[in-house]
Amino acid sequence: MITIALDAMGGDHGLSVTVPAALQTLKQHSAVKLILVGQQEAIEAELQRHKQTISEHLTIHHASEIVGMDEPPAQALRTKKDSSMRLAINLVKEGIAQATVSAGNTGALMATARFVLKTLPGIDRPAIITALPTMHDHVHVLDLGANVDCTPEQLLQFAVMGSILVSAVEGKPRPRVGLLNIGEEDIKGNESVKKTHELLRASSLNYAGFVEGDEIYTGDLDVVVCDGFVGNVMLKTSEGLAQMITHFIKQEFKRNLLTRLSAFVSLPVLQAFRKRVDPRRYNGATLIGLNGTVIKSHGGADVLAFEHAILGALAEVKNNVPERIGQELTAMAAKGVVV
Amino acid sequence: MITIALDAMGGDHGLSVTVPAALQTLKQHSAVKLILVGQQEAIEAELQRHKQTISEHLTIHHASEIVGMDEPPAQALRTKKDSSMRLAINLVKEGIAQATVSAGNTGALMATARFVLKTLPGIDRPAIITALPTMHDHVHVLDLGANVDCTPEQLLQFAVMGSILVSAVEGKPRPRVGLLNIGEEDIKGNESVKKTHELLRASSLNYAGFVEGDEIYTGDLDVVVCDGFVGNVMLKTSEGLAQMITHFIKQEFKRNLLTRLSAFVSLPVLQAFRKRVDPRRYNGATLIGLNGTVIKSHGGADVLAFEHAILGALAEVKNNVPERIGQELTAMAAKGVVV
Repeated sequence: MITIALDAMGGDHGLSVTVPAALQTLKQHSAVKLILVGQQEAIEAELQRHKQTISEHLTIHHASEIVGMDEPPAQALRTKKDSSMRLAINLVKEGIAQATVSAGNTGALMATARFVLKTLPGIDRPAIITALPTMHDHVHVLDLGANVDCTPEQLLQFAVMGSILVSAVEGKPRPRVGLLNIGEEDIKGNESVKKTHELLRASSLNYAGFVEGDEIYTGDLDVVVCDGFVGNVMLKTSEGLAQMITHFIKQEFKRNLLTRLSAFVSLPVLQAFRKRVDPRRYNGATLIGLNGTVIKSHGGADVLAFEHAILGALAEVKNNVPERIGQELTAMAAKGVVV
Repeated sequence: MITIALDAMGGDHGLSVTVPAALQTLKQHSAVKLILVGQQEAIEAELQRHKQTISEHLTIHHASEIVGMDEPPAQALRTKKDSSMRLAINLVKEGIAQATVSAGNTGALMATARFVLKTLPGIDRPAIITALPTMHDHVHVLDLGANVDCTPEQLLQFAVMGSILVSAVEGKPRPRVGLLNIGEEDIKGNESVKKTHELLRASSLNYAGFVEGDEIYTGDLDVVVCDGFVGNVMLKTSEGLAQMITHFIKQEFKRNLLTRLSAFVSLPVLQAFRKRVDPRRYNGATLIGLNGTVIKSHGGADVLAFEHAILGALAEVKNNVPERIGQELTAMAAKGVVV
């Protein structure tokens, strides 16, 4: 039985999303136990609203505090020692749960997880990794914002971690790894990227070389590595562009009676398209490089999206992702490869 | 009369795009003279194909060489002194033309333009700026790849140049300028971005503060400033995502007879949508910060796209963009503002 501790209070919608998402998950998966971490009475009330109670598979772990969505990470770490986020991470540390999922404040989650769980041996800094849809399938990108300035050695560590995650969860033996740059020629890019390129070429990874931004969506890569500043801008830009395109399509279909009719006719097509790029199906970024599985859900996640984040945690625990990363790094160190 | 020198040989399609685009431009604009710079005989043959000859508004300036699309910039600068790109830029330097447009190799164009025209006083490095569509209108973003590592002072210069471009060409008195970052709080971002934030706050620009990637497309900014690495990744990522979304929409409409019928019904809507985000209408990036107007067209531009790049050059010359940037920087220096 896999146990996952949910930060039930986190995110823009708190219990109204986390509790139904937990119930939904349990309906589909029998070998899972979920611990709802948060204000006991509020959780009980929410469960009652769904005509449910605690059970062998669903328990409550009381937490008196909540980390605010805009609270500075250092302050949350220092002062909110009884927050739902902190106690959920503590449960992983204590071995009571194997993973935690939170839709709370990203900075606070990263700072707390790093402080409580510590990084794996050989990893300087954890990174944030998520899957994005591509023209052919999907791709994992890291770092998405945890580290604004990265050394070439850290970027190599990201590549190793991303590669292990994909190979463990998706069963791909040698994931193709690309390094994000602004040109495919060896001469382009900044110093850090050029040095990382050399490290990756010398590594045992299935390194595909430099890739440009468009190849994230149109290429055939499994993992794309970049520093957290670039990765975050890339991710947010994509969100904004997708939002704009959706807005334009809606506007054009709403223009007049005729276009409204054609929208009606096209509804199945539009729905199929929407489902294909539905960001909820990609919700759940992993804080990778820690002693334990920590999944960050989008703050605005709805029930379906939060459920996807829980399923992501489940897949990583099932496939022993942190253990595999630890083993690989130990093996690399034994072989004298400095990561 | 405004004279524009076209690098007729540049781009993936060369004369088959540049010549018809020139002819198209002249049909619409009477007070313009275009100089086709390139291999005289080949240009004459292409003109003949369109049943046209040279005239008061359309002349040929012979160039014996062509810069290859993948040629290293330093090599092009050193060895291709009689290339169409180089001679077109020379015409601007000599005052015979007021602007040049090239769909050739970006690196070579930047290196050659910088070497021949020099940067404006007070500008360390030229930048690449272009307009992108937004949910409400459009936004100008710089730098898009000319400078991989930028000092805060250079980023401030980019902000000044972008602001003057928008105010000159679009008549907006105080363009809203945003600084691209990975969070809106003062604490986030790397050192360079934080220092630039302080410089921008102390400047006389209409500074809107930090913006995240999504606000490029969903916000109400006129100018967004970032370093060339981030800007290039942002631009290429957007291209890739737009390509993927278009691909998915097409796939869904082609799925079966019923969806094909609904595509037929929706054709006017799909065309209106397509027109709205048509990258050809946004073709033409300015190499800003030089003594003269240099426009880089997308290498794969078609006739309509290349025509848009020529019109962009025309608008900048009409509105004296380089002169205004020079004046503003001189005035700032006189006031003791170090840019």
